[in-house]
Amino acid sequence: MITDREKHFMYLAIEESKAGMEAGDGGPFGCVIVRGDEIIGRGHNRVLCSNDPTAHAEIVAIRDACANIGNFQLSGCEVFCSCEPCPMCFGALYWARPDRIFFANTKRDAAEIGFDDAFIYGQLEIGDYKARQIPMVKMDMPEALMVFKKWIEMPNKNLY
Amino acid sequence: MITDREKHFMYLAIEESKAGMEAGDGGPFGCVIVRGDEIIGRGHNRVLCSNDPTAHAEIVAIRDACANIGNFQLSGCEVFCSCEPCPMCFGALYWARPDRIFFANTKRDAAEIGFDDAFIYGQLEIGDYKARQIPMVKMDMPEALMVFKKWIEMPNKNLY
Repeated sequence: MITDREKHFMYLAIEESKAGMEAGDGGPFGCVIVRGDEIIGRGHNRVLCSNDPTAHAEIVAIRDACANIGNFQLSGCEVFCSCEPCPMCFGALYWARPDRIFFANTKRDAAEIGFDDAFIYGQLEIGDYKARQIPMVKMDMPEALMVFKKWIEMPNKNLY
Repeated sequence: MITDREKHFMYLAIEESKAGMEAGDGGPFGCVIVRGDEIIGRGHNRVLCSNDPTAHAEIVAIRDACANIGNFQLSGCEVFCSCEPCPMCFGALYWARPDRIFFANTKRDAAEIGFDDAFIYGQLEIGDYKARQIPMVKMDMPEALMVFKKWIEMPNKNLY
């Protein structure tokens, strides 16, 4: 059951998507992050205006929210996305760990207007990294593993 | 066949991972992006020092590279990651579209030192979003679809 409260925040995310598109900042995507009834972060796609392929609405809003609350975790928060998150934003949301994620348009809707989320979801499903479209090359580097061992042994490290 | 050139750039990515860890900036992950033999972007994990859960080495390096070349696409570039990218960074790399991705440590190695990449990969494999650990709620919002329709109809838009 969707409440009026949830519709209210989703309308704000949709407003963000529209404002960003009309400003020419990037694609038509918006995001609002709330803790209780307080908006702690918001954003829209800024890929074009910032030349930053990672500046999707959710990433912009997560960075804004985390900066505002001084924490890299969003537990106790809810995220309202005008469109179902792409794999990059899905991963970012899982690292940030909000309590719930609401979305309106779907990845299929996004594909229909030319955004390739569905393609990237498909690439992730290919378990063998060698079979993916962007070639991935595994290099055996003992030096890299050595850094991981040092991390394990490091005293007083912040676990996260 | 891995060349000395490729090993050289991977060593630099590993150096980034070590420097970031020792500075307390975040986990032991580094990334270097090159175009030909020129380094155009680099970064290490800065989740802890910037309170930004999206500040993985690859994201930091992609943003650095794109800012340096003034483009949101990395075609013609190669990316050297000290560890196999997590789903967030995998998505970011697919949006940036470099020619090749090299990695040293694997997501299994990362899981062994406490980084949950494998868990997020698993969550993405769950096709039904309702069955995932962070609850996702679909809201039917004609207003959101209307913004997508406006995008399609918008003249002179930058397609990307």
